[in-house]
Amino acid sequence: MVKRYLSVTSLRETLTLLRTGFTCTPSRERVPLLKSVGRVTAEPIFARYSVPEVHLAAMDGIAVVSRETRGASEQHPVTLQQAVRVNTGNVVPPEYDAVIMIEDVHIDGEQFTIRKAAPTWQHIRPAGEDIGESEMALPSGHLIRPHDTGALAAYGITDVSVLMVRIGLIPTGSELVSHGSRPAPGQVVESNTLMAEAMLGALGATCTRYPMVKDDPVHIRKMVQHAVFENDIVIISAGSSAGTKDYTADVVTELGEVLIHGVAIKPGKPAIIGRIGKKPVIGMPGYPLSALTVLREIVAPLVHAFGLPVPSYGTVDAWLTVSVSKDIGSDEFVLCSLGRVGDRWVLTPMSRGAGVQMSAVRSNANLKIPAGVEGYEAETLVTAGLTVSRAEAEQALLITGSHDPLIDYLADLLQQKEIGLHSTHVGSMGGIFSLKKNECHAAPMHMLAENGDYNIPYLEKYLPKEEMSLVCIAERQQGIVSRTGIGFDDITRHSFINRQRGSGTRMLLDHELRIRGMANEALKGYEREVTTHLAVALAVKAGEVEAGMCVYSAAKALGLRFIPVASERYEIAIRREHLDDPRVSQLCDTIVSPAFKEILENLGGYDTKETGVRRELP
Amino acid sequence: MVKRYLSVTSLRETLTLLRTGFTCTPSRERVPLLKSVGRVTAEPIFARYSVPEVHLAAMDGIAVVSRETRGASEQHPVTLQQAVRVNTGNVVPPEYDAVIMIEDVHIDGEQFTIRKAAPTWQHIRPAGEDIGESEMALPSGHLIRPHDTGALAAYGITDVSVLMVRIGLIPTGSELVSHGSRPAPGQVVESNTLMAEAMLGALGATCTRYPMVKDDPVHIRKMVQHAVFENDIVIISAGSSAGTKDYTADVVTELGEVLIHGVAIKPGKPAIIGRIGKKPVIGMPGYPLSALTVLREIVAPLVHAFGLPVPSYGTVDAWLTVSVSKDIGSDEFVLCSLGRVGDRWVLTPMSRGAGVQMSAVRSNANLKIPAGVEGYEAETLVTAGLTVSRAEAEQALLITGSHDPLIDYLADLLQQKEIGLHSTHVGSMGGIFSLKKNECHAAPMHMLAENGDYNIPYLEKYLPKEEMSLVCIAERQQGIVSRTGIGFDDITRHSFINRQRGSGTRMLLDHELRIRGMANEALKGYEREVTTHLAVALAVKAGEVEAGMCVYSAAKALGLRFIPVASERYEIAIRREHLDDPRVSQLCDTIVSPAFKEILENLGGYDTKETGVRRELP
Repeated sequence: MVKRYLSVTSLRETLTLLRTGFTCTPSRERVPLLKSVGRVTAEPIFARYSVPEVHLAAMDGIAVVSRETRGASEQHPVTLQQAVRVNTGNVVPPEYDAVIMIEDVHIDGEQFTIRKAAPTWQHIRPAGEDIGESEMALPSGHLIRPHDTGALAAYGITDVSVLMVRIGLIPTGSELVSHGSRPAPGQVVESNTLMAEAMLGALGATCTRYPMVKDDPVHIRKMVQHAVFENDIVIISAGSSAGTKDYTADVVTELGEVLIHGVAIKPGKPAIIGRIGKKPVIGMPGYPLSALTVLREIVAPLVHAFGLPVPSYGTVDAWLTVSVSKDIGSDEFVLCSLGRVGDRWVLTPMSRGAGVQMSAVRSNANLKIPAGVEGYEAETLVTAGLTVSRAEAEQALLITGSHDPLIDYLADLLQQKEIGLHSTHVGSMGGIFSLKKNECHAAPMHMLAENGDYNIPYLEKYLPKEEMSLVCIAERQQGIVSRTGIGFDDITRHSFINRQRGSGTRMLLDHELRIRGMANEALKGYEREVTTHLAVALAVKAGEVEAGMCVYSAAKALGLRFIPVASERYEIAIRREHLDDPRVSQLCDTIVSPAFKEILENLGGYDTKETGVRRELP
Repeated sequence: MVKRYLSVTSLRETLTLLRTGFTCTPSRERVPLLKSVGRVTAEPIFARYSVPEVHLAAMDGIAVVSRETRGASEQHPVTLQQAVRVNTGNVVPPEYDAVIMIEDVHIDGEQFTIRKAAPTWQHIRPAGEDIGESEMALPSGHLIRPHDTGALAAYGITDVSVLMVRIGLIPTGSELVSHGSRPAPGQVVESNTLMAEAMLGALGATCTRYPMVKDDPVHIRKMVQHAVFENDIVIISAGSSAGTKDYTADVVTELGEVLIHGVAIKPGKPAIIGRIGKKPVIGMPGYPLSALTVLREIVAPLVHAFGLPVPSYGTVDAWLTVSVSKDIGSDEFVLCSLGRVGDRWVLTPMSRGAGVQMSAVRSNANLKIPAGVEGYEAETLVTAGLTVSRAEAEQALLITGSHDPLIDYLADLLQQKEIGLHSTHVGSMGGIFSLKKNECHAAPMHMLAENGDYNIPYLEKYLPKEEMSLVCIAERQQGIVSRTGIGFDDITRHSFINRQRGSGTRMLLDHELRIRGMANEALKGYEREVTTHLAVALAVKAGEVEAGMCVYSAAKALGLRFIPVASERYEIAIRREHLDDPRVSQLCDTIVSPAFKEILENLGGYDTKETGVRRELP
């Protein structure tokens, strides 16, 4: 009987079951030493011979019998009876027990004269100095690092026995197309097993991706049987929920046993833990971030139980910038962008949609909210797990406010200076509030005030007396995007899509309506909101609406018509105290760089004459 | 003109020259997405299409026109005119703008009745939710991580343009034999370019190892010309010093220019920085740890200048256990073993011999002593660079005292529990002093006192009133090792090799001589000291001496004869306050484990009847 989805199991119980319900005995294989980096030794490795095997000269000079050198001094030079010329690395013949550097020897034909006694073993690398024959060079369970290979090669090791955890990955789903094919609407590229292979491969597992299987229990069953035979762990991608086309649980039940159906984690709840022929079989949900969470929180610990190390970047205590709430009962994992502003770490959750893979790409931290907690208030201190090195997180530049594709190009240029630009799109007003709470390094904005100026009146109002600098990124054109070339004057005759409240683009729209004496309600779709320029252009391109307002670059990127409405000052506001922060000064340098100017010109729709101009408040 | 070795260049100047003297423009190549993990993007990557491309249902249910649902409530159910059944992931047809979960719908044939209004866009994944067509998914200069591949695959990316830094590695030296061959005395396995390939490959460089070249300038020149043509950087291994058979500098001078010969670092001083046809050519010294230092301190920054990231594990402030001194003028890098004892990090330098690769294998930290400093006193706080993750360093178990091969087997068993045993061999008395300063977790010892007991009298004397526990590892046999079967009674008739002062083995020897009324001087070689059992056995095996005293396992490992002299109690002393430390309790558990007992029995020469027996002081 398939346990239905109603009773989910906690993550803790799930992990306990994995540890105790399976023997987790890894396979092993011999690999050439050159391919062993990143693998884990399955048995201790012993030196085949001593290194060096015999005493070697550690200097260029002469090998001597130390006894013969006794009493030598500046006043009483000694001419040696027995001595022989040696270079560094040469064997010291057994009758000698010290080496004297060539600089300290007077050579006269075959005669060597010295002025200083040589203690026994001087300048000799004794046999076994590095390692002795039969000595243990590496224990079992050791992750082989690049520099280990040099030592092992020197000790006569040509191949090593390493742990092997074989993981079979089965993609299922009739909506899948293979990587490289163009999906039709409603189809998706099969990317989850590819991600799984990359992630588990990086842990040292040996992955096999099987061909895609349609939603058909007969075919899925056949593939699972095959994969269980060939692997230590099997992961069935998608079909793990309890819908009409979800067959994973049924198949596992037929071939073995479903131990858990539904784990109390979010994203990732529809996970399945099963057992077929003593081997663990994991049902991995189809949403990419659900799959990612199951790989990280369930599969990685399982792989660890098989003996492979799972690296961790550690944690950081950070101040949450916005409240996050959740239902009681599940551990929830929220991908975040983390950065250090002044002497505080601040943490901003990203989109929690399980289909939004860009949250994983853009995040550098992961906040776990335990099952028993309903969420956290903004401005509480929380502990976040790093998903990048701490050094990389220290380099995060936090940009919060109005979005423009230019910000991505700034990110591109800054990445080359190893600064990671993390932008949060909350509109111009959102940026002001973030600046007010000192939760970002810079806020891009373009807010037209009643006096006709941009931005300054708003900063004066919301951040009175604060010392601020405004750096102009560009003057940019906003206009009407459409498939057919609609201008502002025709706008009421067409369906429209708006930007969110507080966005500069909406303010500009309201201003343009007002000066023409038009009511907001005249626009069909005024109340329909999206949050980016590109989302406006996408809705137009898809034919959902006929017109919207956005920047030129968004229209151009999608091959749409664009009729300019107004130019506006797109500036970035910075607390003056942060101007000396190397991340911020690099940002300012990048804005005035020739490379950025070239980008602005190529994109079109931007005027660069004000680019880099700084205005100060107060 | 070759600049001779006399004027070395500081590391700082060397790095400045590398940054400013070369353009460091990487090549680029296209690689399949599946092979791109660990590579660095050469250009930004844009989504080929929006994901999702159209609005999709986020739940199983019905697609509805939200306007039609207005007013629906428990009291006033609404039967919809337009609605269509959709499953999660299905396309929502353009005429609908919300989805209602199937659980909330009353279905009667073709009729759908609802009791709650659906806000616009409810349970819909809007087109472009993850990413919009043309949006930047990754900037250039981004290190591709495993989970990035899943996202890129979903966005239609099949291959990516990545940075390529091609490095040619040329091994030189007539004494080299290739990896896998058994070196004759005075020969060495060519392992340095292998280590270089592994280390630089791990940074993302593309390495080519060329065939070994003998010490012959004509052949070296030909190979260098060839490698310069094919690569962005060329590394010539060995021959970089100023000896009679060191041709690197001459060859570089003939083909281009030697910019630096001799860098003020130790190990690694004989490094060469040259330029041939605008490309950097590095002369890498032949001693393995010199090579390692040049790779880490000079080549890695150069590779970084080409755009590849060089990860860092960060630093730790630690208390130095022993003094280290050095000459003024060079930055010296000392490999160390680092661990946390109580709430302090303690740092112990390892062998500084440039040929001792095991120092690199065993160390977990690296202490840089700047050029202007003569060294550091014991018990000063210094900053050490981690060479493993901080989490791994936290798991280091520090064992200081008398060495026995058993300690390596304990390390092997503990590694499987992710505890890294770091042992420092300073003899039993050295262990006592380390315990006294609280600089280790446990000290193995076997010191026979005049009252016939082992260890306790010494602990009482040197650590009076301290609360200590002694755990017996085994009773072990010490005896005379020889090729011919020499017993203690014949010992004065043969040449001998002794252990260092303070070692328990030497105390036992002295005791055995004393009870027989023999003078120390009666032994030919009493004054000749080595520091491990294996070193004694190696000297005997090599024929340098006829006899020595060591444990049975060392004699057995080298196939030598062994005549027992005495059994002694080999115990491990632990401050009682550390017994609850998980690393120490795992050590104690391991000592009494069946796996360890089996090892003791297989090795021979150990009696396990006292194994695990604990004695307490006071």
